[in-house]
Amino acid sequence: MALPTTTARQRVLAVGLVGPGRVGSALLDQLRTAQPRLARSGLELRLCAVAASRRMWLDADDPELNGRHDSAQTWRPSNLDEFAAHLRGDDGRHALVIDCSASEAVASRYPEWLAAGMHVVTPNKLASSGPLPRLQAIHAACGSGARFRYEATVCAGLPVVQTLRDLLDTGDALLAVEGMFSGTLAWLCNRHDGSRPFSEWVHEAHALGYTEPDPRDDLSGLDVARKLVILAREAGWSLSLDDVDVQSLVPDELARLPADQAMKQLQLLDAPMARHLADAQAQGCVLRHVASLDAKGHASVRLAQLPASHPFAHTRLTDNVVQFTTHRYRDNPMLVQGPGAGPEVTAAGVFADLLRIAEALEVR
Amino acid sequence: MALPTTTARQRVLAVGLVGPGRVGSALLDQLRTAQPRLARSGLELRLCAVAASRRMWLDADDPELNGRHDSAQTWRPSNLDEFAAHLRGDDGRHALVIDCSASEAVASRYPEWLAAGMHVVTPNKLASSGPLPRLQAIHAACGSGARFRYEATVCAGLPVVQTLRDLLDTGDALLAVEGMFSGTLAWLCNRHDGSRPFSEWVHEAHALGYTEPDPRDDLSGLDVARKLVILAREAGWSLSLDDVDVQSLVPDELARLPADQAMKQLQLLDAPMARHLADAQAQGCVLRHVASLDAKGHASVRLAQLPASHPFAHTRLTDNVVQFTTHRYRDNPMLVQGPGAGPEVTAAGVFADLLRIAEALEVR
Ligand SMILES: NC(=O)c1ccc[n+]([C@@H]2O[C@H](COP(=O)([O-])OP(=O)(O)OC[C@H]3O[C@@H](n4cnc5c(N)ncnc54)[C@H](OP(=O)(O)O)[C@@H]3O)[C@@H](O)[C@H]2O)c1
Ligand SMILES: NC(=O)c1ccc[n+]([C@@H]2O[C@H](COP(=O)([O-])OP(=O)(O)OC[C@H]3O[C@@H](n4cnc5c(N)ncnc54)[C@H](OP(=O)(O)O)[C@@H]3O)[C@@H](O)[C@H]2O)c1
Repeated sequence: MALPTTTARQRVLAVGLVGPGRVGSALLDQLRTAQPRLARSGLELRLCAVAASRRMWLDADDPELNGRHDSAQTWRPSNLDEFAAHLRGDDGRHALVIDCSASEAVASRYPEWLAAGMHVVTPNKLASSGPLPRLQAIHAACGSGARFRYEATVCAGLPVVQTLRDLLDTGDALLAVEGMFSGTLAWLCNRHDGSRPFSEWVHEAHALGYTEPDPRDDLSGLDVARKLVILAREAGWSLSLDDVDVQSLVPDELARLPADQAMKQLQLLDAPMARHLADAQAQGCVLRHVASLDAKGHASVRLAQLPASHPFAHTRLTDNVVQFTTHRYRDNPMLVQGPGAGPEVTAAGVFADLLRIAEALEVR
Repeated sequence: MALPTTTARQRVLAVGLVGPGRVGSALLDQLRTAQPRLARSGLELRLCAVAASRRMWLDADDPELNGRHDSAQTWRPSNLDEFAAHLRGDDGRHALVIDCSASEAVASRYPEWLAAGMHVVTPNKLASSGPLPRLQAIHAACGSGARFRYEATVCAGLPVVQTLRDLLDTGDALLAVEGMFSGTLAWLCNRHDGSRPFSEWVHEAHALGYTEPDPRDDLSGLDVARKLVILAREAGWSLSLDDVDVQSLVPDELARLPADQAMKQLQLLDAPMARHLADAQAQGCVLRHVASLDAKGHASVRLAQLPASHPFAHTRLTDNVVQFTTHRYRDNPMLVQGPGAGPEVTAAGVFADLLRIAEALEVR
């Protein structure tokens, strides 16, 4: 059912954004567009502060800014202490920080923000997949009643984290997760058919903007491993990045090169990738980049040889996919598939988290 | 993140169940199992009343019943007025009705229950897919602050309705829905390969308990059409069941027979189904039972001929699948797949709705 149009429960939520980059800007657009509709449904979003790495603005600087564009605002040097103090205010209002950076410095602030009663939503994987003690501090800080949500850290706008949460909260037990969490690697595996050397596909993906600036960051599998850690922890397994058995596609020789030289030496990928493909084809299988977590807690990220009957053999080019095998979905797992990156869909995942928190706000 | 273990926001929710059948009983089991865990997270569920079609019990009859089994309770004649009055109480508590019947008589009570401030969650498709004026009355009644949720009406425990809701609430626009909403028909289409007459597969599905007691209820496509109507309305299109172009698989001759004779005349299905299969195979396609809604609002339920490259060509035997094409997911749609029926997963879908409402309860 659509958002209620009653204004019986009029709530105000002060919002501060850290990281107006690709995802952050898309989110600002989405929030601005949605504002009138949300207001009619009883939720007033007040964008109070935006901080990038060097500069920020606070609405105190400019009482008329809501709805205006960044260029019209007065910027000052970025300072997360001032940012948070301003956002929180002193009138007991509801406040929420959106972290759309990929910064450790920002993630390390979550415990204090949450302890101060500010909600945090983020697509930044560092807190959820990083050191366990910090994540425990985050959970402990939620004792204030503030909430921490991070749906978009795994497969962007696809319903993954909340879906797992619902399974568990209703008493189901996670038995296994299998997924393809990198659109880039999905595309490369789909393309890599032996007709051209693998490195040519990497160059093409790079030119299309599908890869990170340094494609080794995709090929290392680390980002995929982070997503697997997030899901494992969601299910209560205290897994860390070090526990994931990650098969990097980057040979040591290539890994050692500085970034500017690596792009010129991508052919170092070709021989091993040709072997992987030949092995798979000899088995009548396709090659896919798969993250998996089994019932014993073993986590791995690797090139897998999958039979044509496997659901991952038929995904669309850059799709992400995640498959949950649980006690209730034991014979046939539950599967969610679709684009798992891109500013707009990632921003929408963050926005949905915000709405979930807003739904539960008490009128103050 | 797991449910918080803080008891800072201790909330009490009185719950009444209508329809302790297959889904209702599975839900009672799940709620009982979850009760201690939910209590630790600050939510006390109080099961106050259970009503079947002829009898019901109210906890007033037995002050010690919580946690006991049905057999130990004192039953009285079923009466939904008494049921609701008892559940609502007179102390301003939060109350929620779970309707696990498939009854019109129960669905027609939602407006008054919601207007009285009681939340309603249900896997019963009748209200959401039935007459629009009643559904409008339900929406209007939510002005009381009570909420109406029905995730499990479409694909049971799969995240479908909430996923669509999140897309729309974050500003996305629905362009098309395509789905296979009947596990039974998915199984039959998968099996139907020409090696045996179609009716033999129907008999086998019936023996396996995959079909309704009268398999014509599956083959008519009506239940699938209801699910499509629910999704269309979710997206704001005021579609009704009559607007759906439903291709029934049941030939008129078979449709006319009384239930007891129909099972003996299922071979009437065979000739047309053999023709459909031959047509599909001649096109190099597979046959699938597909519900679809396009951007112009045209809704249909029919046997579709799909190429092997279509994602629905490779689903597992009884899986449901739904695919949303939206403004943001235009090139590659979002897809959710898995078992879409069964008491346990359906109950879990209802339970997740309950939790979503519980999250937003104010402390009273
Ligand atoms: N893009 C996607 O498709 C996608 C998908 C899933 C998840 N994510 C995640 O979403 C986040 C944002 O991604 P993006 O693609 O939008 O990145 P981006 O375009 O590089 O934007 C990053 C933003 O963070 C800001 N920032 C960096 N360090 C900061 C600090 N210490 N304090 C305040 N602001 C800081 C940057 O400001 P400056 O410009 O001043 O440096 C910039 O505005 C990342 O965590 C990413 O992993 C992205
Ligand atoms: N089973 C599934 O896999 C599935 C999946 C998705 C959705 N659903 C939906 O979930 C609902 C329940 O399905 P089910 O399989 O559990 O059905 P079921 O086993 O037939 O149970 C129906 C229950 O509703 C009760 N009931 C019927 N009319 C009533 C009335 N007027 N007042 C009070 N109680 C009444 C019945 O009581 P009596 O026994 O006294 O008649 C029975 O307890 C249906 O709406 C169905 O469409 C089911």
